[in-house]
Amino acid sequence: MDYEKIFADAIDAIRDEGRYRVFADISRERGQFPRAIRHDAGDNAKSITVWCSNDYLGMGQHPKVLEAMHTALDETGAGAGGTRNISGTNHYHVLLEEELADLHGKEQALLFTSGYISNEATLSTVAKLLPGCIVFSDELNHASMIQGIRNSGAKKHIFRHNDLEHLEELLKAADPNAPKLIAFESVYSMDGDIAPIEAICDLADKYGAMTYLDEVHAVGMYGTRGGGVSERDKVAHRLTIIEGTLGKAFGVMGGYIASSKALVDVVRSYASGFIFTTALSPVLAAGALASIRHLKGSSIERDEQKVRANELKKRMADANLPVMDSVSHIVPLFIGDPVLCKEASDLLLNEYGIYVQPINYPTVPRGTERLRFTPGPLHDDSSMDALVEALTEVWGRLHLTRAIAI
Amino acid sequence: MDYEKIFADAIDAIRDEGRYRVFADISRERGQFPRAIRHDAGDNAKSITVWCSNDYLGMGQHPKVLEAMHTALDETGAGAGGTRNISGTNHYHVLLEEELADLHGKEQALLFTSGYISNEATLSTVAKLLPGCIVFSDELNHASMIQGIRNSGAKKHIFRHNDLEHLEELLKAADPNAPKLIAFESVYSMDGDIAPIEAICDLADKYGAMTYLDEVHAVGMYGTRGGGVSERDKVAHRLTIIEGTLGKAFGVMGGYIASSKALVDVVRSYASGFIFTTALSPVLAAGALASIRHLKGSSIERDEQKVRANELKKRMADANLPVMDSVSHIVPLFIGDPVLCKEASDLLLNEYGIYVQPINYPTVPRGTERLRFTPGPLHDDSSMDALVEALTEVWGRLHLTRAIAI
Repeated sequence: MDYEKIFADAIDAIRDEGRYRVFADISRERGQFPRAIRHDAGDNAKSITVWCSNDYLGMGQHPKVLEAMHTALDETGAGAGGTRNISGTNHYHVLLEEELADLHGKEQALLFTSGYISNEATLSTVAKLLPGCIVFSDELNHASMIQGIRNSGAKKHIFRHNDLEHLEELLKAADPNAPKLIAFESVYSMDGDIAPIEAICDLADKYGAMTYLDEVHAVGMYGTRGGGVSERDKVAHRLTIIEGTLGKAFGVMGGYIASSKALVDVVRSYASGFIFTTALSPVLAAGALASIRHLKGSSIERDEQKVRANELKKRMADANLPVMDSVSHIVPLFIGDPVLCKEASDLLLNEYGIYVQPINYPTVPRGTERLRFTPGPLHDDSSMDALVEALTEVWGRLHLTRAIAI
Repeated sequence: MDYEKIFADAIDAIRDEGRYRVFADISRERGQFPRAIRHDAGDNAKSITVWCSNDYLGMGQHPKVLEAMHTALDETGAGAGGTRNISGTNHYHVLLEEELADLHGKEQALLFTSGYISNEATLSTVAKLLPGCIVFSDELNHASMIQGIRNSGAKKHIFRHNDLEHLEELLKAADPNAPKLIAFESVYSMDGDIAPIEAICDLADKYGAMTYLDEVHAVGMYGTRGGGVSERDKVAHRLTIIEGTLGKAFGVMGGYIASSKALVDVVRSYASGFIFTTALSPVLAAGALASIRHLKGSSIERDEQKVRANELKKRMADANLPVMDSVSHIVPLFIGDPVLCKEASDLLLNEYGIYVQPINYPTVPRGTERLRFTPGPLHDDSSMDALVEALTEVWGRLHLTRAIAI
C-alpha cells in the first residue's frame, strides 16, 4: 500500500482549497515588541511588526517575568523531571496553583501543560464521571473543548452561539434528572464577542446544570485583578469550573482549571491527560506566577490595551475598512475568501513588513475568512498609521470588499 | 443534583483501594542533583535524595542547557505568543525540528507541547486519514498512545507484550488490503524491558504495515548519538514514525515526531492537538536544542548512567532485595501490594530522606506494585550505600517479600 501517496493527496486537498498553512519563521525581540525578525525572507532576516500575537499585553518580555524565570532556571534547572506524581511536582507548581485559585476565588486550581489539554482532560473526565451526563456546548466552542466533550462519551447538545433562548429550549427538553454541564467561552477569539455569563448561570441554576467557562482569551485582560470577564461581571463564584491559559495575556505557556476542592481532586486523580505527562517546567511556572501577581496589582497594561484596541477600530472604520463588530480586545477585518485572505496577508508581510496571519477554515466558517489584529499597549500611533496606510493600499490592489457579509 | 458528592465518592473509591496520590512538593537544586528540598515536611524544608526522576542524565542542570535558555529568554522573551500558525513559530522551533529530523535520520520532525499530545495527535490523525486502517498495539503501550488510537476511530488489535508470534497471528488474520499500523515502544518504562524492533519491522514489511515507535524513555540514552534504541539497533530507517520527548533524558519539556516529509505535513495540517495550541516556549526549544546537540557528541553521560544502573542492580541483588529483571536503565523493585508499596515509599521519604514514588495501578497492573529507581550518573557510591541500607531496614520493618511474583 502506498501510504506516502495517501498523505500527499491529503495535503493536496488542503492546497486546492487555498488553505495550506505556511508558518512564518520569526524571532520576537525582547525590548522591541511588537517588532520581530523574520527568518524566511530569503538570505537576510528582516524586521517586521507583529499584529497577531496572543501575548496581548507584552508580558512575555516583562522584566519581572524574565527575572523570575532566570532565577528559577538557576535554582532548580530546566525541566520538572517527571510527572506531577513521580518527582515532577515543584514548589513553583504549588505556589502557582494557590495563586490561580485565589485569582478566580475558587478553592483549588490545577495546572496542565497547555490550555488545549486542560480543556480536553477536564471536560472528558468530568462528563464521563457523571453517569448519563448531557453536555450543552456553544456552537463556536474551541476545538479542544469539542475534543474533550467527544472523549467523555457523554450526550451533547449544541446551542446556537450565545443564544440563551436556544440553550433554554434544549435544557427544558432534557431529562430533568440527568446530570448537565453547560460549556462555553467568555471571549470568542475570532469574532471578539462576549458570552452573557450571568444569564447562562441563571439558566444553569434553573435547570440544575454545572457550568464550564473557558476564559483563555480573557484572563489577565478583564476584571480589576485580571480574573477575566467572570471577575468583571462579578459572577466568578457562580461558575463551577473556570479554565484559563498561561500562554496568552500572561505571556508564558501552560493551562489550568480552578474549581472546588472535590472537582479538582477528581480531575487530578482520573484525567489521563493530566496524570501521564511530564509536569510543566518550573521555569514556566515561575514566570507565570510573576506575571499573574503583577497583573493582579497593575491595571495599566490592560487599560492601555483597551485604549489601543479602540483606537485601531476607529482608524479602520475611518478608513472605510470592513472592521467587524467586536466588544473585546480582538479586531477582526472581514475578507470573506480564503485565497484573497492569504494573498492580502502575504502582500502585507512581504511588501509592508506587517505580519498578520490569514484566518481561514477550519478556524472560522468558510466565507467568513478574515485578518485578525491583536493590538497591544506597545502598538503606537505611528505603527497604526503605517498599518492603515498599508491596508488601504492592499484593499485597493486586491479589490477587496468594503462590506461585511456575515 | 449533588455533583460535589459524586466527585467526593469518586475520590473515596480511590482512597479505599489505597492508591490515592499525594504529590511530594519538592525543589530540585541545580548543582546538587540528585539532592532536592522537600517543602511538605512540616515547618522546615528538608533535604532528600531523588531516586525516581526521569531527568535520567541530569541534563536539566547542564550548563550548556541553562546558558541556552538564559540567552533565549533575554533575546526573545518568555513565551511563543501564539499557535505555530499564528505568530508562534520561533526560529528556535525551526532549528530544533531540523536537529530532531537529523537525530533520527528522517526527512522532517514536528514539535508538540508534550510527549503525551504528540502520541495522541499523531496516532489519531494518521489512523483516521487511512480509510479502514487497523492498528496493532502492544498491550503495555502508554496511556497517550491508547488515547490516540481510540480517538482515531480505527479498528484496534492488541498484541501480547513484545510477543512476535501473537503479532504475526493478528497481522495474518487481518484483511490484506487494509492499511495497517503497528504501534509500540522501545523501552517500557515500568519494567525496563526492550522491544524486538528489528523483528517487528520485518513483520511490518511482510504484511505491508506502517510502524510507530515511541522512544520517549530511550532518546538521549541509547545509540552513539542518543537517537534511541532504534539507532543502537541500526533500524531507525525502517520505522515509519519515531516519537520522542524533550522532557526525560534531554531534561527540558515537550514532545515530537520524526518521519517522512508527507507524513509530518499531514499531522501538521490535520491534527487538532497540534494546530489549536500555543507553541512551545522558545526558551524550552532553545534548551532542548542545546541538550540534543550536546548528547549527539558526548556519550559520557549515558555511559556513566549505565555503569551506575548496573551497580545498583548488583547491590540490590547482593542484599537479597527483589530487583526485577531489566535490560535497560530502569531498576524496578517488586512489592506486589498497593498499601505496602505506599507505606514503604512513605517510610523511605520520612525517615531516610530517600524519595522514590510508589508505582501502583493504573500505571502498572494490580498485584505488580513496585518501587521504580532511575539511577543517574550523579548517584554516587555513598548514596547507593545509604539507599541499600535503608531498603534493607524497610524490608525488615514491613516484612516485605523477597520473591518476585509476576
